[in-house]
Order: sequence, then C-alpha cells, then structure tokens
Amino acid sequence: MRVDSEPRLVTAGAELFADALRAQAVPVTPVDWRPPTAGTEDELVRVLADPRRTEANASAVRRMLDSAAHLVDVVPAADALGLGPTDFLHAGPPIGWERASGPLRGALLGAAALEGAADSPEAAEPLFTSGGVTLDSCHHHGAVGPMAGVVSASMWVFVVEDPATGRRSYCSLNEGLGKVLRYGAYSPEVLDRLRWMSRVLGPLLQTAVRAHGPVDLKAILAQMVQMGDEAHNRNRAGTLMLLRELLPHLIDSGAPSGDVAEAGRFVAGNDHFFLNLGMPACKLALDAARGIPGSTMVVAMARNGTDFGIQVSGTGDSWFTGPAQVPDGLYLGDYGPDDANPDIGDSAITETAGLGGFAMAAAPAIVRFVGGTVADALANTRRMYEITLAEHPMFSVPVLDFRGLPCGIDTTLVVRTGILPQINTGMAGRIAGTGQVGAGLVTPPAEVFPAALHALAAAAPPLPDE
Amino acid sequence: MRVDSEPRLVTAGAELFADALRAQAVPVTPVDWRPPTAGTEDELVRVLADPRRTEANASAVRRMLDSAAHLVDVVPAADALGLGPTDFLHAGPPIGWERASGPLRGALLGAAALEGAADSPEAAEPLFTSGGVTLDSCHHHGAVGPMAGVVSASMWVFVVEDPATGRRSYCSLNEGLGKVLRYGAYSPEVLDRLRWMSRVLGPLLQTAVRAHGPVDLKAILAQMVQMGDEAHNRNRAGTLMLLRELLPHLIDSGAPSGDVAEAGRFVAGNDHFFLNLGMPACKLALDAARGIPGSTMVVAMARNGTDFGIQVSGTGDSWFTGPAQVPDGLYLGDYGPDDANPDIGDSAITETAGLGGFAMAAAPAIVRFVGGTVADALANTRRMYEITLAEHPMFSVPVLDFRGLPCGIDTTLVVRTGILPQINTGMAGRIAGTGQVGAGLVTPPAEVFPAALHALAAAAPPLPDE
Repeated sequence: MRVDSEPRLVTAGAELFADALRAQAVPVTPVDWRPPTAGTEDELVRVLADPRRTEANASAVRRMLDSAAHLVDVVPAADALGLGPTDFLHAGPPIGWERASGPLRGALLGAAALEGAADSPEAAEPLFTSGGVTLDSCHHHGAVGPMAGVVSASMWVFVVEDPATGRRSYCSLNEGLGKVLRYGAYSPEVLDRLRWMSRVLGPLLQTAVRAHGPVDLKAILAQMVQMGDEAHNRNRAGTLMLLRELLPHLIDSGAPSGDVAEAGRFVAGNDHFFLNLGMPACKLALDAARGIPGSTMVVAMARNGTDFGIQVSGTGDSWFTGPAQVPDGLYLGDYGPDDANPDIGDSAITETAGLGGFAMAAAPAIVRFVGGTVADALANTRRMYEITLAEHPMFSVPVLDFRGLPCGIDTTLVVRTGILPQINTGMAGRIAGTGQVGAGLVTPPAEVFPAALHALAAAAPPLPDE
Repeated sequence: MRVDSEPRLVTAGAELFADALRAQAVPVTPVDWRPPTAGTEDELVRVLADPRRTEANASAVRRMLDSAAHLVDVVPAADALGLGPTDFLHAGPPIGWERASGPLRGALLGAAALEGAADSPEAAEPLFTSGGVTLDSCHHHGAVGPMAGVVSASMWVFVVEDPATGRRSYCSLNEGLGKVLRYGAYSPEVLDRLRWMSRVLGPLLQTAVRAHGPVDLKAILAQMVQMGDEAHNRNRAGTLMLLRELLPHLIDSGAPSGDVAEAGRFVAGNDHFFLNLGMPACKLALDAARGIPGSTMVVAMARNGTDFGIQVSGTGDSWFTGPAQVPDGLYLGDYGPDDANPDIGDSAITETAGLGGFAMAAAPAIVRFVGGTVADALANTRRMYEITLAEHPMFSVPVLDFRGLPCGIDTTLVVRTGILPQINTGMAGRIAGTGQVGAGLVTPPAEVFPAALHALAAAAPPLPDE
C-alpha cells in the first residue's frame, strides 16, 4: 500500500502498541476502546443500524427532561391506586411469594397485619402461600417504593403530577431509618408508626399540600444537587426545602397542636423524608419516555430483593432481569456482609434519571454513608457520562464546573463499553423482620443489558442486506 | 569540600536550577520557596524567635476551636449594647464622618432618621459633621455587622453566647439583598423595612428563640459546609436549618397570624439570613483567642469602606490598617467597577475563622455569585492552608477528602509567604443611597501584616544575642 500523506495513527487496547510507536517518535492518538460484551456484536450492529434510533432516543430524552413534577396531593393508596385490603404492591419486577426475599416477605407480612388481613405478621404467611392475596409491581401502577416498596390500601401516598400532560406518579411516605417496614421489619413499633402515619401524618400533609398548592419538586431537586444531596441516600437539603414550603401550612391546618408538633418533628428529624418525593418525580419523567419504538433508553431499573430488572423505552413493558447483587458498603452496628440481602427497591429510579449514584460528584459527603472515597465519588459520576445520552440542563454539579448530570442510560452504550450503572443504596437484613443493616454501592447484573439488546434487535427492522 | 555520601539536593525559586540538575539525572526535591516580604526579615526573626510564640498560638487556636456559639436571645441594641438614640456602631476599624465612604455615610444617615434624630436621612448630615453623635466600631462592643454594619438603638440584635465562659457576641438582623441599609441605601422602603423588623420580626424571633432554647450555631455551621454553604456569601442551608428550628416556635408564638406569616416569608425568602448568625459565632470564637502575649494569630479582619484593619491576639486592641481594596467580581444589572465602593464590612470575621473565602472549596457554586472558576475556588481554600495554624476539627470539606477548613491566620506566615487571606464579599455602591452593586473577591492591603509584625516584634523579648 502506498501512503501519500503522513499517516495518522490511532491506537486502542493494549498500551504496548502505542508505546512502541511513541518510542519511534510517531504521533499517536490513544483511544480508550474495549471490545463490546462478548456475543453481542451482531445485535449491536442491528440495533445501532435501526434508522429510528437517533430520533427515538432524542425524543425519549426530550420527554424525560421536559416532564415537570409537582406534588399536588397526599391521599390513601386505596383511593390513588384502587387497592383493596388484600392487594399489595412491591418494589422491583413482578415476583411471587415463593421467590421473594426475606425483607420483601417481612414487609408483606407486616402490611397484611396492618390491613387487618391477619392477626399478626407471623400469622399472615398462609395468606401469601395460599394465593389469597394479589401481589404486583409498583411500577405497573405508576408507583415506586423504596427498598421492599410494599404499598397497601391504608397507607397514604404522595401524588405527583406533570401539569402539561396530567400524567401522575405515586410513592408512599418515608418512615425514617432503622427498624422500618420497607427494610423488612414488622415489629409492633413498626406497625404503630405506620398506623400513626395513616391516621395523623398523611391527613396533615394532605391539608398542607392542598393549602400550599403544587410544590415544584424538580426545582427542589435542582437546588439539592447544589447543596450536597444526590437525592437517593442524601436528601437532607431536599427535606429542609420541603419543610420550608409545608411547615407553615401544617401549623395553619387547624389540627390539634400535639399532632402538628409530632408531624413536624417526624419530618424534620428524618433527613430521608424527601427520598419518597424525588423517586416519583424521577418515575414521572421516565414514564414520559416510555414506549418509543426504536429507543434504546432505559426507563426503569428496579429490584425486588431477588431479581434486578430493567425496562427500556423501545421494548414496551418487558422486564429484563437477572440476580440482584449484594451491595458493597458500610454496615450499621455489628451487622456484616452475611446479614445483607441482595439489592432491593425501586429507588434506582433516581439513578435511571441521573441522580443517586450518577450524582455522587454533587454529594461527596455520601461516601461516609455508602463507603468508598471522595475520588471514587467523582470518578463514578464521570464514568456515567460514557453510558448516557444527555447532560441534565437543570441538575448541574458545581464541582464539575456546573456540568449537567449524566442521564438517560443507553442500553447500547452499556453493552458497548461494559460500564454498568452505578447505584447507591440502603441494605436490608436478609432475614424477614430485621430492618436496615447498612448502605452501599451496587450495580445491576451485567446480563440484563444484553437481554434488553436482544429484544431491541428482534424489534428492529431488517438490515439493508437482509 | 569532600562529600562522603550521595548529596541530596533541595532547590527553591527559579526552576532553571532544578531543570539543569534533572538533566544530569540528579534527584531533586523542589520546594516552593519565596523570599519574605521585603524589609520584614529582621522582625520576622525576632517574632519567630519569641519563646512564647508556639504555646501562645497553640492556646489561641485551642480557645478559638473550643468556643461554642449558642443563639440565646434576640433583643433591641439599646438593651444589649447600651446604645442611646445618638450612638451609632459601624463595621471595620474606627473612623470619623470626614473619612467615611459613601455606603457608610448612607447607612449612618438612614439610621439617624430611623432613630428620629433627624426628620430625614438627607437632613441628618449636620448631626454627623457637627459631632453631635457618637460613632464607634462594632468590634469594640463584642458586635459585628455586615457591610456598613451600622447598628443603632432601636435595631434588634441576635445574642450569641459561649455557655462555658458566658462570653457574648451580637449582630443585627439581616435585611435581605439589594436596596438595604447595610449597603448604604436609605430610601423610605429601606427605613420602613427596618421599622417592621424592629416592631414585628425582632419580637417574634425573641419569642421563638426563648421558647426553643439555645440554638447551636456551630453545629449548623458544620452542616452548612457539607451542604455547599461557605457561610459568608452562601448561607442557604444554614438559613433553612435555622428555619427548621424556629418556625414551629414562631407559629406557636400566639402573635397575629398575619405577622407570623410575613416573618416566616421574610426569613424563608432571604438565603442570607443566617449570615448574621454565622458572623457573631465567628466573632465569639475569635474573641476567645484575644490578648495572648506572643500569639501571632489574627483575631479580626474588618473594613469600614475606607480602611481595612486587622487585629492580632498578641497585640491587644491595636488595629493595623491600610486602604480597603475594590473587590473583583460580578455586578448586578448595569452596575460596573466604577460604581463599586472599596471593601466594607465586618463579615471578613468569617474568613478570620476559616469560613467564607477560606471555605470556597466547600461551596463551589459560590463562583456564580462572586466570580471566578470552580478551579479557583478549590485553589483558594488549598492556598489558605499555607497561612493558617490549624485545620478545623468540626468544619470539614467533603471534596477535599473531609480535610478540616484552614483557620487561625498566622501573621508571620502571611508575611513569610506573601500569600494574602482570600475574602468573598458583597459590593456596595460607592454613592450613599445606592445599595448593593455586586459581589466579588478581595484581599486585605498587603501592608497591614508587616505593620502587625512590627508591633509583635516590638513586644517580643530581646534575642539571646542582644
């Protein structure tokens, strides 16, 4: 081969080649290239060649970013979601009692006792083994729930709305940390707290939200990432901003002052209270991006404690699942890795929208809660730009020179690079009834992305030469 | 000279020498050395040789760090500071009317009208030119005031106390941004707001603080630097945390609900409200470190709009002053550098305690308010370690791997390195009556540190060979 001009060399993979060329004074442009996940090459070609893809992903991103999220009401789940006393929603992809993990079982037993379907949590198990109740995924009802994510009829839920489309999403009220139902605990104190939340807190919040009018959750999220919250495991500034909005109306509610004081103390004393508002805000944005043929954007990541599942815009309501991993992190008290259940909860909806693990650079103090170093936190956010379609125009990170958060996970980029989404999460005890044992970092099982790619490839039009 | 072992080379100053040695494959340890400020060499030797210095500085640091800061009351300045209707305190070192800058004059004229000493701000000037009033520095009364820092009898002040020593400090209530007295504005809306603050806000805050009991300001400051506030020009998280503490008691106060609502809106709508609590907390800590013979630690930096002054622990109540500089920063609306007054205010007490410009790494979003880049913000904090005696054990910066903030400015280190303290500040219009024109970055005039060194040297014991 004859080369008329100076050759320009690009190297990828092993540094050896680049070093050898540099030693000969040849200018080299190194590229951080890795082969795609083994066995995905043909399907990657088919999906990347899909002529609908570029516009479909642009549309998915636009709909996600355009979605507003206003807290408009607080109502019982029975009313918002049409749940009867034997209907139970849970986090993650659908699962039956047989395969359910300890914390999910614990939360279901507690919820059954709460609804009066059994005399006690311990006595509720036959209901679930006999099929006398219905179980379904929160995500199938426009809802999300942290950890076990169990929602039952008498629990109150936040109602979040995008005023432009009227679309709504729902999430239960946050119970605090430690021995709480969503971590699988169901002791009398757990159920008493839930009863108080339904009897006192929910109605008070309803009054306050209705008196206040719509609360712009997206504006609060934008402020949070300027104030050290990543909106998954740090929600401290968010909770304070919510309190600033609602507290005057809580106290103006005309309710007994003892109830108001207790509600105020409960919210003010729980730095995680805003988590259950950030989650439905993210859910609403991602639901807006669902069902776009040809789009490879991930619209849900969720875990039920046994399976980790993702949903992708271009593949409708299909779940692509694999085994949930045990997080790597920090433990409370004497708990250790043997006590931790695999990854659980719908809270990875925050990462799906560019928050949580994707926003660790905005919240370096999070490493004191989930482990790792500050350098890791910055590197985690930077790495997520490799697998995402957009930089969020409202959620910007001061320490990254106000760069927008990486959002809109692209199935093809994950498969192509082998980089998995980074998730911050709480850890539930694996034995039903335990509660929280720690917090840490986790990723989805790698195989869910090739599985989604396979479905995208099957739905793609034939290649020109086929 | 015979050298028996391998020589170890340390280079300082021009890189040329190090480069020449490296080219000969000689291992070199470069040191970032600069000559001390010209003409200070002899006095530096004398002060550094002072046998009291090490223990005196350790004691100054310990007293500064040990000081607690509890908000214990809110009362009129007449009661707290014994001010009569013709007594006026101001920011910075002492100054008379003749040399006072526009914004200080504007604030004094407004305050005189507020106290009824004149029919209008415009009519108040003869009071000041005739000497019919007394002017004194806030710092001489345990008080601090942002910008012009004018305090008069009818204004209400926060009372901050260290319970271990009973020592107290005082600061007026923050008016918000824009056309406000502390920036030299004195229009009817400014005076109306001040009257409302004395009539409604002060008494309501008094009721709330007394009902709440002591509010731990140092704990709030520690949280703030984890939440993107540097506690000088960003006080957003601090204001929210204060509101969380006081709002329930504000609303429980039994006062007319219209007043409570207005007070709540006023505080919640002013992200700078906490500045006037962070400042007296810093003042209290630094006052604890005053008057230690041999200590070279700076215990106050303050500006009156004409002079920048510092006070040093080992030199009693002496001020070392030089001309205040015009900050370099960002301007509001159509204002520009020609509109800005030189540096003004006691708020540099935050930098003196390790916050503000020293804490920019904790608050990179501040660059949108004061100018510069995020890289500058990080570099500013890092540079301040070069001139400080301690790293604050409670105020830590997540993004610097939780390193404590640099605090306790050492006069000898400033003179030795030529590095000046970095201050974030608001900018007042130089014409009386204007108000705020921007915010920016500024340093003290370099000569105040050699001046303080001179006094320290004069107070030091003779050198052994003298």
